Amino acid sequence: MFNGLSAFPLTPLVQGEPDEKAFGALIETLVAAGVNSVGALGSTGSYAYLTREQRFAVTKLAVSAAAGVPVMTSIGSVNAEMILRLAEDAQKAGVKGLLLAPLSYQKLTADEVFRLYERVAGEISVPLCIYDNPATSGFEFTDELLVELSFLRNMGSIKLGDLPADLAGASARVAKLKSQVAKGVTIGISGDAQSAMGLLAGCDVWYSVLGGLFPYDALRLTQAALRGDVDETRQLNSALEPLWVFFRRHGSLRTIATVAELTGRVVAPCLPFPLQTLAGDERDALQATLAQLPLRAEG
Amino acid sequence: MFNGLSAFPLTPLVQGEPDEKAFGALIETLVAAGVNSVGALGSTGSYAYLTREQRFAVTKLAVSAAAGVPVMTSIGSVNAEMILRLAEDAQKAGVKGLLLAPLSYQKLTADEVFRLYERVAGEISVPLCIYDNPATSGFEFTDELLVELSFLRNMGSIKLGDLPADLAGASARVAKLKSQVAKGVTIGISGDAQSAMGLLAGCDVWYSVLGGLFPYDALRLTQAALRGDVDETRQLNSALEPLWVFFRRHGSLRTIATVAELTGRVVAPCLPFPLQTLAGDERDALQATLAQLPLRAEG
Repeated sequence: MFNGLSAFPLTPLVQGEPDEKAFGALIETLVAAGVNSVGALGSTGSYAYLTREQRFAVTKLAVSAAAGVPVMTSIGSVNAEMILRLAEDAQKAGVKGLLLAPLSYQKLTADEVFRLYERVAGEISVPLCIYDNPATSGFEFTDELLVELSFLRNMGSIKLGDLPADLAGASARVAKLKSQVAKGVTIGISGDAQSAMGLLAGCDVWYSVLGGLFPYDALRLTQAALRGDVDETRQLNSALEPLWVFFRRHGSLRTIATVAELTGRVVAPCLPFPLQTLAGDERDALQATLAQLPLRAEG
Repeated sequence: MFNGLSAFPLTPLVQGEPDEKAFGALIETLVAAGVNSVGALGSTGSYAYLTREQRFAVTKLAVSAAAGVPVMTSIGSVNAEMILRLAEDAQKAGVKGLLLAPLSYQKLTADEVFRLYERVAGEISVPLCIYDNPATSGFEFTDELLVELSFLRNMGSIKLGDLPADLAGASARVAKLKSQVAKGVTIGISGDAQSAMGLLAGCDVWYSVLGGLFPYDALRLTQAALRGDVDETRQLNSALEPLWVFFRRHGSLRTIATVAELTGRVVAPCLPFPLQTLAGDERDALQATLAQLPLRAEG
């Protein structure tokens, strides 16, 4: 399941509670488009803001609406005991993969992160994706640690954070990682603005925010990149550059949530308090940008 | 209550559960020493790693063991609804103050932080201390925002993070803040290695990690600084410098937890998994340092 396009939908909230109808509709669009997997309750799905009960309910809904398309869900928590309970819940709900970032309150050491993954890996029965996201977790993985972790049992994929900004540097890092990690562990790219480059650099999968709302467009780019069509990949990515400008400026979550509100896919305000979608001039500018983009909500 | 020495004890854990006996004994030492307030469940008390139920139980125990000394407890959570529930619990348990850092998963904007404090301040009935701790919250307060927040209702104190490294710079910042914040809101210093300077620079209160384990020593330093005895303050602080070296290198939590284990005040391992106290050479070096320090666990 850790190949191709893994689409990460929002978990739209209404007064702090998941909007099941809007969420189910997002998943159905992903299935209709033919994404390779659904990343429910990723960072885009606001997993860190929800209770265990909410996460269980959303995961069950995702698996049901995904109608056989494999679902991965995040089990991240600052509390290690809670991670194990969330993993149990997710597996009971029928997920085919788990996603784990090393959340903490105190900055973790590499040794502590290894112990955490080792313990979790020993208690799960579906593959785990290592989630490298320094901006939210506060932890910076070294490639050495990623390689070491990949040899734990039940490891399925590595969701990379930042890659070198040039294609040659990115390709070198991805090639080296792929030559060192355990057999069968795929390398994925996240951070949508760099993902076209990441796929061209050899990543196996795009863990995609855009794909969670516009799966047709994200699939087209993914497929062009994975078949090695550099020109088409660059063309498709260039067309999205005006959107990446907002991703860079406001983060992917606030941007894609604003897009979802502006296009009526979710009810505003859809983010967990106190997070705010864009307002004022920036919201207007994003709306104007959207009108110029070739994005398609339907097939 | 937001004056003098506010002592922050560990919440010692045994297999993930608070060790009530060891915790109660820590609090009793604080009371015997005569600290001005107890900061239960601060960062040193691992609040962010505990469940709501555990936090309620620990807070009740703290209030009971504190025997009239005012207790403050942290209500921080990534989940805003949970913050309000934790505030209710803490007030029901009898705390005289609340401590709140702007925890988040996604980096917050200043506007979002203001909305968060505004909402919480409107629903509590004891004073709140604003907790500035970029290393754990990921948010950097500006003085402008701190001043703005101080005018919300129910604000009691500001627990500052980093101060300028020189006394003149620190004094200038503290003086300016004190001249601008709402009347009655005190300014406190945290980060033990800089706290002697912070108190000499005009802070009203030391939110102290050392004070949670060695209240007699922390009180002596606090009292010297607050009566303006620069020489004695510097002398007492210099004597502690070998300990501050470990605070800077490993963080205050891992250091003080190791000290508590080494001195038999708590059962090892006392931190929430996967956090580890110091091991190997560093643990030995800390033990050797401790033997040279004039710290007193009893009066």
